[in-house]
Amino acid sequence: MLQGIASLGLEPLYMPGTEKIVLGAVGDERSIESLHLENYGCVERVIPVLSPYKLASRELHPAETLISISKQHIGAPYFTVIAGPCSVENEEMVQQVGNILQEEKVSFMRGGAFKPRTSPYSFQGLGESGLQLMAKVRERFGTLIVTEVMDSEQVETVATYADVLQIGSRNMQNFTLLKKVGKTNKPILLKRGMAASIQEFLMSAEYILAEGNNNVILCERGIKTFETSYRNTLDLTAIPVLKEKTHLPVIVDPSHAAGNRSYVIALAKAAMACGADGIIVEIHPHPEEALTDGKQSLSFPEFRNLMQQFRRLAAIEGRILP
Amino acid sequence: MLQGIASLGLEPLYMPGTEKIVLGAVGDERSIESLHLENYGCVERVIPVLSPYKLASRELHPAETLISISKQHIGAPYFTVIAGPCSVENEEMVQQVGNILQEEKVSFMRGGAFKPRTSPYSFQGLGESGLQLMAKVRERFGTLIVTEVMDSEQVETVATYADVLQIGSRNMQNFTLLKKVGKTNKPILLKRGMAASIQEFLMSAEYILAEGNNNVILCERGIKTFETSYRNTLDLTAIPVLKEKTHLPVIVDPSHAAGNRSYVIALAKAAMACGADGIIVEIHPHPEEALTDGKQSLSFPEFRNLMQQFRRLAAIEGRILP
Amino acid sequence: MLQGIASLGLEPLYMPGTEKIVLGAVGDERSIESLHLENYGCVERVIPVLSPYKLASRELHPAETLISISKQHIGAPYFTVIAGPCSVENEEMVQQVGNILQEEKVSFMRGGAFKPRTSPYSFQGLGESGLQLMAKVRERFGTLIVTEVMDSEQVETVATYADVLQIGSRNMQNFTLLKKVGKTNKPILLKRGMAASIQEFLMSAEYILAEGNNNVILCERGIKTFETSYRNTLDLTAIPVLKEKTHLPVIVDPSHAAGNRSYVIALAKAAMACGADGIIVEIHPHPEEALTDGKQSLSFPEFRNLMQQFRRLAAIEGRILP
Amino acid sequence: MLQGIASLGLEPLYMPGTEKIVLGAVGDERSIESLHLENYGCVERVIPVLSPYKLASRELHPAETLISISKQHIGAPYFTVIAGPCSVENEEMVQQVGNILQEEKVSFMRGGAFKPRTSPYSFQGLGESGLQLMAKVRERFGTLIVTEVMDSEQVETVATYADVLQIGSRNMQNFTLLKKVGKTNKPILLKRGMAASIQEFLMSAEYILAEGNNNVILCERGIKTFETSYRNTLDLTAIPVLKEKTHLPVIVDPSHAAGNRSYVIALAKAAMACGADGIIVEIHPHPEEALTDGKQSLSFPEFRNLMQQFRRLAAIEGRILP
Repeated sequence: MLQGIASLGLEPLYMPGTEKIVLGAVGDERSIESLHLENYGCVERVIPVLSPYKLASRELHPAETLISISKQHIGAPYFTVIAGPCSVENEEMVQQVGNILQEEKVSFMRGGAFKPRTSPYSFQGLGESGLQLMAKVRERFGTLIVTEVMDSEQVETVATYADVLQIGSRNMQNFTLLKKVGKTNKPILLKRGMAASIQEFLMSAEYILAEGNNNVILCERGIKTFETSYRNTLDLTAIPVLKEKTHLPVIVDPSHAAGNRSYVIALAKAAMACGADGIIVEIHPHPEEALTDGKQSLSFPEFRNLMQQFRRLAAIEGRILP
Repeated sequence: MLQGIASLGLEPLYMPGTEKIVLGAVGDERSIESLHLENYGCVERVIPVLSPYKLASRELHPAETLISISKQHIGAPYFTVIAGPCSVENEEMVQQVGNILQEEKVSFMRGGAFKPRTSPYSFQGLGESGLQLMAKVRERFGTLIVTEVMDSEQVETVATYADVLQIGSRNMQNFTLLKKVGKTNKPILLKRGMAASIQEFLMSAEYILAEGNNNVILCERGIKTFETSYRNTLDLTAIPVLKEKTHLPVIVDPSHAAGNRSYVIALAKAAMACGADGIIVEIHPHPEEALTDGKQSLSFPEFRNLMQQFRRLAAIEGRILP
Repeated sequence: MLQGIASLGLEPLYMPGTEKIVLGAVGDERSIESLHLENYGCVERVIPVLSPYKLASRELHPAETLISISKQHIGAPYFTVIAGPCSVENEEMVQQVGNILQEEKVSFMRGGAFKPRTSPYSFQGLGESGLQLMAKVRERFGTLIVTEVMDSEQVETVATYADVLQIGSRNMQNFTLLKKVGKTNKPILLKRGMAASIQEFLMSAEYILAEGNNNVILCERGIKTFETSYRNTLDLTAIPVLKEKTHLPVIVDPSHAAGNRSYVIALAKAAMACGADGIIVEIHPHPEEALTDGKQSLSFPEFRNLMQQFRRLAAIEGRILP
Repeated sequence: MLQGIASLGLEPLYMPGTEKIVLGAVGDERSIESLHLENYGCVERVIPVLSPYKLASRELHPAETLISISKQHIGAPYFTVIAGPCSVENEEMVQQVGNILQEEKVSFMRGGAFKPRTSPYSFQGLGESGLQLMAKVRERFGTLIVTEVMDSEQVETVATYADVLQIGSRNMQNFTLLKKVGKTNKPILLKRGMAASIQEFLMSAEYILAEGNNNVILCERGIKTFETSYRNTLDLTAIPVLKEKTHLPVIVDPSHAAGNRSYVIALAKAAMACGADGIIVEIHPHPEEALTDGKQSLSFPEFRNLMQQFRRLAAIEGRILP
């Protein structure tokens, strides 16, 4: 086995113990992977010393990534707010959303046109006409568009309208889609999968980066656990962990995690307090009439309240909030 | 609210309690969903009485589904074995696999040509040439091909070669892909997502059924839990639960769950003992040299041992094993 | 079945559906539990409308509980800091801790004398002599003692020294112990179990309250999930959920959740931002020499930094920090 | 740091890498633990090469443990069935249970006298008089008693009646209790905690073994996961893993895991098929009237059916079933 290690140009090391033996191999683990040491019966574990993501890693790229889109910036010291309805429902409601975003000086509007829904019988979104409605809002208010692309076939269409392409949780390991958006020149908002470890999350970012697109925004949105008194468990520890391991901006989605508007403001503030670079939050002019996710959407007065609290927190956290 | 319920043609019911009120609505919940009752602040919970999947449900379709492909059957009382390498690596190895399958009278060969890999730096499969190698094995040995389709753009190509289209765990909620394979006339092997509840799993099957493709095979392959001494936690309780809730065949993948060949035979036998309709298992002529997943692949002698144990179990379980 | 419901003095209700029937029973569910309706084959689910905890519930006791110990208060609008070493190791170190707590005006010292350790070969704590060392610090600095009691046999001894009795995560459902501390007149700091739902957590608090001890402080300290890049997943969503469901004070332990001091300050600030009533945090004069949990203990300069940040946050959150 | 390692009498090793350095220490890790290397900022991870449990480990004790109690044996090749009610309710019902156990040649009766209940308002068991009722059954039918001890104060009383002392899931890390039962001469049935890793489970067994009691039976009973269509996720992969790592007998509790009698027989058979050394199962003469856990208790005809299936499986698995 030491010969196999040496044959790859790696430096082999031998550490005999009293009951087991530790072998070492110094060099790039992408070459040692070709030996498939873990396949051997006598090998109990293969333990990499460095992280398997390279382009996403702060070990090799210590400086923070700052993403700039039409004079707007995402990444520290900016704190980015992305707000809007779960689904684009009709022109009136997105114009109302555009209006409050302008009043609150929020530059990014989220809105779903192609909607991933658990049930085939649920509302599936307006499709391209939803994107057109958002484009009209951008024309009038200047708000940049953040919207989901669900499939590699949709990338071209969605990229025509969107300023930021969102990859949903359920697609975090849709590698064909990751490669496709990696070839566009749009920033990508990548949501963590509900069962994805932080390492798998960074490996998915690496797929996009490896295609040449350096503008990846990571989004923590809750993981699956045994707790049932809210929808998913927002993993805020992931924020300082990600800030340590990667140079990419990290934002938080408190709406989908909580699944209940009562908890959204508390979680949004916690996100800023623990170092997130922004949030993506659902708002709706009339949450009780929303076609999707009304239960978790903030009303406009609640959203104004949140923005006011963000401004006070930003002042002491040294964050720039437009 | 009772008026809203009545306006949909549903029968409203009123159950006042000492501290809270329970309202009822009798009828199809797909219509009551349009009221979005859960959005109202005064509504604590909306509890459906019937399951949200209709076509997949045994409540409405009590008889077991039996899927037939070129004289082979999947579904009780048959016990289907699907075996083969994680990835198709070269012609020699797939021919060797075809040979042992014929010897063991196994009619379905699994093999990955398009591989979803956590890392962009790992081997990504041979692509279409891998499918061609499997087609050659089918010509010679008659073994039917089970292989993964990763993206809606690949469906047409993969369907040209495959007898059964596999949807991987990471794509269980890739709804565009589900709809696309629902429009083919190939049976679909749908793997449960690593964080998917049994209900979400059945909702994904419903997406395929709703497009007119009735031949869906469900596959339990392990869920994400806190345990780290194996890869994923095989959820064998899901087998009797699924057999109760749906008429679709249910099989088990012990290889990806365990991630370690030492545990595969024990789990495969447990799968049959608790009522599964088959298994999909990884085998390799030389596991220690496998390009992917060698650690979890059975060697040929181990596979023969498994088949022998299956035959004895099948006799007492009343299962037909070819 | 309706007769059984009526025979208990409850009001029976009948809601026939198109495929299933919903029965109702109006009254206290502690009496309906005696019917064991869930045991019947024809009964699919029994769904309680009100919460099963009564004394802990905000439904019946809307006002916040404020716990007072020797002029110190725990509960909103106070924000309580409890700090100290994982284990009491020797007199010098606890005196050093007492000293910095006094400088930072922190009134509660945590410290383990009886230590629950995963391994029988790990340091198990100094026992009663550790309690005596903390009592000396209290004499000199006035810091109140928060310390764990591991078993009903230890309650009397530990209560002689402690100002607040702590029940550890592993004992959250040690019901004998809960009843025993419920009979003391000391406030109880109850840590959430690593696999305990919020409802189970409140049921354990109910055990203590039901014995007549109203002074229960709840502590979120992380739950078990699949993530391995830190120790446990701190469930900060539990804070607004608990504040909604119960009148008891809720604090957070960021040290045991993270298991790594690099993440502790971020999480502690997030805890205050999302509405917690305090934190319990591990500090050590020389973390690298700590006998237990050194990796997660803040050094004194880090602790001073945390207190400074707390003071700024408290000002905008309207919290009283001594 | 290498000096520190050498000062403990361990052999230090040095493996420099291109970006990080790996240090080794050859010897017993119980001594290296005293260095607390993980506390240092420059140390990323400390990775033990051998397992932390010693007495429970198969590495050091390859031969299977066989536990013998009054002519009955627990451990391979025996397959032990322990059956009985969740709670002892009255004399008539335990006598009925004793009767069917005798008919089915089952030698171990389970029955709860001291019951750990989530709610303080639920039935808490008959206490010592429940133990006396079981002792009467033993007198008449010879069935050995397996019953739970909830607290170190109860050990003496319960040990007077019980043949096997059961430690419940919620007490798996009640270390005071583990040490106390480790000092008795009764075999201990240790249930895995709902959030306990396999390693933590074995560490808890180690606590008992370290006190000199070698007769520990491990019991897998389901872990907490996100799935809600049954109670807990039975972790059958733990069976082959435990059989590999330890020499102690391993049994399965399908009743508490499933929480629903519909799934119990399937899971019990799966347990035998994957190598378990026995099961503990709940039965009740009239499940629908049971005071606790009726929903998951098998009726007598269901239990007879299970025993018949066990006999056929045992024949092909080479297991001895009385």
